[in-house]
Formats: sequence, structure tokens, C-alpha cells
Amino acid sequence: MDPVRIIEVKESVLGDNNKKAEELRASLKKDKTFLVNLMSSPGSGKTSTILRTIEHLRDEFKIGILEADIDSAVDAEKIQAVDIPVVQLHTGGMCHLDAGMTETGLNELNAPAYDLVFLENIGNLVCPAEFDTGAVCNMMILSVPEGDDKPLKYPLMFSTTDVLLVNKIDYLQLSDFDMEAMKKRVYNLNPSIQIFEVSAKTGEGFGAWAEWLRIEIRKWLT
Amino acid sequence: MDPVRIIEVKESVLGDNNKKAEELRASLKKDKTFLVNLMSSPGSGKTSTILRTIEHLRDEFKIGILEADIDSAVDAEKIQAVDIPVVQLHTGGMCHLDAGMTETGLNELNAPAYDLVFLENIGNLVCPAEFDTGAVCNMMILSVPEGDDKPLKYPLMFSTTDVLLVNKIDYLQLSDFDMEAMKKRVYNLNPSIQIFEVSAKTGEGFGAWAEWLRIEIRKWLT
Repeated sequence: MDPVRIIEVKESVLGDNNKKAEELRASLKKDKTFLVNLMSSPGSGKTSTILRTIEHLRDEFKIGILEADIDSAVDAEKIQAVDIPVVQLHTGGMCHLDAGMTETGLNELNAPAYDLVFLENIGNLVCPAEFDTGAVCNMMILSVPEGDDKPLKYPLMFSTTDVLLVNKIDYLQLSDFDMEAMKKRVYNLNPSIQIFEVSAKTGEGFGAWAEWLRIEIRKWLT
Repeated sequence: MDPVRIIEVKESVLGDNNKKAEELRASLKKDKTFLVNLMSSPGSGKTSTILRTIEHLRDEFKIGILEADIDSAVDAEKIQAVDIPVVQLHTGGMCHLDAGMTETGLNELNAPAYDLVFLENIGNLVCPAEFDTGAVCNMMILSVPEGDDKPLKYPLMFSTTDVLLVNKIDYLQLSDFDMEAMKKRVYNLNPSIQIFEVSAKTGEGFGAWAEWLRIEIRKWLT
């Protein structure tokens, strides 16, 4: 296997991130590329969720991936192993991505060649919520073992995301996670959010999520 | 139940955090207070680990708790429910605590009245590792569902901590978590780290961890 491409990215010190993000979204529209910014805590299953989603959509859409981490390339190697183009971004200790860092990654990937690009953000429920990356869709994962109280503690993340995947539902049998209480907390913060219950380990629930994403991508590409 | 005391804390804009942290540690030594800075991802079990540790040590030591969150007081309420003094710190969106914020919390709690204070930091594996809070002991939790690859992705956190609790070992039966591989990755970063395997849900492993902490506290108090 070829070594993963690793790019060092740095926070933009000048300029307005919101303006940069709007410009990036306009380019993505022109180039017909649907960019998903995927955020979650460390270890909630971002990479395995991307891998399951690839299985459902790779026959219809050209897919590329940006993996952001402080260090290592273990996630990018998992993507490369299923023959999907991937670039690993290293943030040099930074806890989030901004629009400039995202643009650097998209250029390196040659994003206009793809219909769908996933940007796997740094595992963190705080900082990534504060920076618009320029993505078309903000997506987050909450995994069952993290607990149903997370919307109370990290409200900005749940407020700024378009879609929430509740992952690791295969752990519900060992957990006191209250799905309805969690959803109520999320809808209080964000009434228009889409929520899907899934298990990236077993594949359960991915049909409904992939169908929703398929429709969103088609809207963007036409 | 009385309402939880909630204090808004702000990052120090002036001065040297490392110097401030050293001064705070010197005061803690003089006042005979052992301060533990507890860090982890969101939902890895910081509050339930503190509650289990309280059960083991409350007859020997006077214990007080500082709970830091961006929002809510759900964790502080759980501590208060077992009759342990607690102050809730709200960071106004900040992703970590610095030594000045910690000092504000300690003053509000009246820390010299306690032998042992836990500071539950913001749930985040990135930012809290970068700021010395002035604590005597840095402690982190990694929970089994987060995966055994986390030391590769968040090396600074694993490098700067004195003790690691591997929590939720009751989930090992459903997981492919490789305990030995994880430990090898951690020892590569931090050869002198102490590691304990625990389940805050069942109480398993808390005897050994509490015994280690008991010895460390006694060393500090004499």
C-alpha cells in the first residue's frame, strides 16, 4: 500500500473565517462537490461511520475523504484500504479546522473530481463547533457510551449541526442511555435537526441515513 | 436540595500560566491540599469515577470538588447529592481551564479546608493538556468504547498525565479493544505513567486505584 499523503495545515492568522467559509461553499457549489464536516468526541466512531456510508454510496457518487488529526495516519490508512482517495491533515496540535485549513485539504485532494467529500474533523465537542469550515452539511456523532446528557453540556455543537447520528446502538443492551430524553434535549436546542440511530459495527440504521444523504447530495449537485 | 453554586470563570489574559500554576501548587503544599486535575473525552465517566473514588476515601480525607463545564450543572448536582461540597465552574464556551480559573474555583470552594480536591476539567482530549492548572496530580480517563488507538491521536494528553484510568472495562465483552496494544502505545509516550483498569459502573478496580491515590495524598500532606 502506498503511504498516505500527509499535509500539515495551519490556522489562518488573517482574515474573516466566516467570509472564507462562504467563499469556499460557493466554490463547492460551482464545482458540484458536497462537503460534509463530521464532528464528534474522540472514539465515537467517525471513521467507521464514514466506511459504512461509503459502502452505501460508492456506486452512485465519486467519494473522497479528508482525515484531520493532531498526529498519526491510522484513520486515513483505513480509508485507503478500501480504495477511496484520502488525504491526512495534521493540525500541529490545533483542536479544530477552519475554512482555510479545509481549503488546503480540498486542493490537495483535488475536490472538484468528487461528488461527495467527508471531512473528518478533530475529535472534540467544543472547538470544532465554533468554526465554519465551509462545508455544505455539518454532521455529528454521539455514541451511546458517552451518555444522554451531552446536549446539556456541549450545546453549541448540537445547535450548529444539521444531522446527528446516534452511534453504537449495539451498546444499548449494557447501558442506561435514555434515547428519548437525549432526543428531547437535542430538539430543544435544534428543532430542525435530523437524527438517525445507527451501529457502524453491525451496519444497522445505515440504510435510512444513506437515503437522507443521497437526497441532500442530489439537491446540491443539480 | 440547595441550588449548586455556579461561578463564571474567564481565561487570564495577562501573565504567564506556568508561573501562576507553580505559585498555585506552592499554596496547595502550604495549605496541605492535594489537587487532582481530571481530564478525558466527553462521556468517558469523569463524574462517576469521582463518585466511586469518594466512596473509598471519604472516611479518611476531607474532600471537595470543582466541576467545570461549558454549560449545565448536572455533574455538580450528582456530587452534591452524596453530601460532598462542590462548586460548578462555567467557562463561557472555553475548552479548558488555566491556573487562574482553577484558583478562582479553589477560592470559592475554600480549598484549604480540604485534604483532597478533584477538578473535573472540560471533556476534551486536546486543549486541557496544553494548560498547567496548578494541580498536584494530572489524571486522565480513557474509556473502552473510545478505542485503543487514542494514544496515537492525542499524544500530548497521554504524555502529560501522571495516572490513567481505563474505564468501562464492563464493555470489554462487546468490544475489540486491545488492552495490551493500548498500554504499549501509552508507555511509549510516557514510561512512568500509572495505569489502572476500572469500571465506575460496577466498582471493579477501584480498590487498587484508591490505594495508590491514598499513598500519594499522604506523601503530599506530610
